[in-house]
Amino acid sequence: MTSRKVVELFYDVVSPYTWLGFEVICRYRTVWNIDLKLRPAFLSGVMQGSGNKPPGVVPNKFKYMSKDLTRLREYFDVPLNFPSDPFHVMFEKGSLSAMRFITAVQESEKGGDKYVEQVSRELWRRIWSEDKDITEPASLCEAALKAGLSDSEIKEILELSKSKEVKDKLKSNTQAALDYGAFGFPLLVCHVNGKQESFFGSDRFELMAHCIGEKWLGPQPEKSAAKL
Amino acid sequence: MTSRKVVELFYDVVSPYTWLGFEVICRYRTVWNIDLKLRPAFLSGVMQGSGNKPPGVVPNKFKYMSKDLTRLREYFDVPLNFPSDPFHVMFEKGSLSAMRFITAVQESEKGGDKYVEQVSRELWRRIWSEDKDITEPASLCEAALKAGLSDSEIKEILELSKSKEVKDKLKSNTQAALDYGAFGFPLLVCHVNGKQESFFGSDRFELMAHCIGEKWLGPQPEKSAAKL
Repeated sequence: MTSRKVVELFYDVVSPYTWLGFEVICRYRTVWNIDLKLRPAFLSGVMQGSGNKPPGVVPNKFKYMSKDLTRLREYFDVPLNFPSDPFHVMFEKGSLSAMRFITAVQESEKGGDKYVEQVSRELWRRIWSEDKDITEPASLCEAALKAGLSDSEIKEILELSKSKEVKDKLKSNTQAALDYGAFGFPLLVCHVNGKQESFFGSDRFELMAHCIGEKWLGPQPEKSAAKL
Repeated sequence: MTSRKVVELFYDVVSPYTWLGFEVICRYRTVWNIDLKLRPAFLSGVMQGSGNKPPGVVPNKFKYMSKDLTRLREYFDVPLNFPSDPFHVMFEKGSLSAMRFITAVQESEKGGDKYVEQVSRELWRRIWSEDKDITEPASLCEAALKAGLSDSEIKEILELSKSKEVKDKLKSNTQAALDYGAFGFPLLVCHVNGKQESFFGSDRFELMAHCIGEKWLGPQPEKSAAKL
């Protein structure tokens, strides 16, 4: 038995490119010999901590991103849609309560990360597919219900998400991302044979596969496998 | 006979990521059904015109770029090396005379772009592999000699590179890139069936291949073909 490679994914549901990276690496969990660690973190903290500016502030970049995400939506098969007011959603409403909620799901989940994955996906779907709120408690509850959690579990998680423990955990995940050199998300940190390699973006999977000794089959590996 | 797809590459030899994109698309000239148009342009003008900032000004981004380029060097098989003082080389010395020189090569070359390609490559090799100057006339001459041009041809091109005609041509290429939505290089503009799609960066080839109906074989297609 060869030892499994650990891949950490630092993410925030406010970022559409990160959703693409999240879905791809989740698909490769069963294709590559990897042990995926989901690390919910706070993108706004990473931008501030690294002194980076969001790409959307340059008009040509913003126009390109809209076009690029539309093409990637189809190629990655992720149901991305631009919210009606992306700047308001991303920079004014933000994702602090959502990321604390996801962190609380992770803190309370035992033996795996099925719910962390599913709640994250449902929150992405709300903000980046259905143009719905992710800041209000009712919105978080709805996402968690869809993810399969019970009313009583959700009530506990919502309470936990306001605790110092969870706030500190989100801060420490964010700091860990910065310590790995983050200036944006997704950040994928691979640990292979005692060495560590970081990859930024959802467009480095081919190179990442090469570096960790796995085979890249495109963003939809099941589809490629079916063709072979 | 199916009609060939036109791909325009907007580039500047000051950019290391663009070198990767340049070599890849040059390799695919004979693999894909494309007609490649080399469009030398001025990156500094694109950054100014779009209001974009170079990635190197964020420390974590600069550190990541160094690491990323080192990995890509091997994966793309392009002999990239960081110059000893990259900021001085990129932002103080710059590439204006080099890009005017390349534009003059293109203006004087009849029937093809063999020399434009080769002179561009030799200038990239100087700045991004051998840590050599690309601003002095002697440096440009050396690169052109290596590219196979004669002394008398080089003398003419050097003269031409100072003409209003060439200065205007470089400006109009730069403006064309901005009009296509550029905020950095490489910018690849594909014209397929009367439609046009722009791709920014050397990490969008897989998606680009998908969009133009060609097959992506990785950054070293000859190597992949040999394996089949």
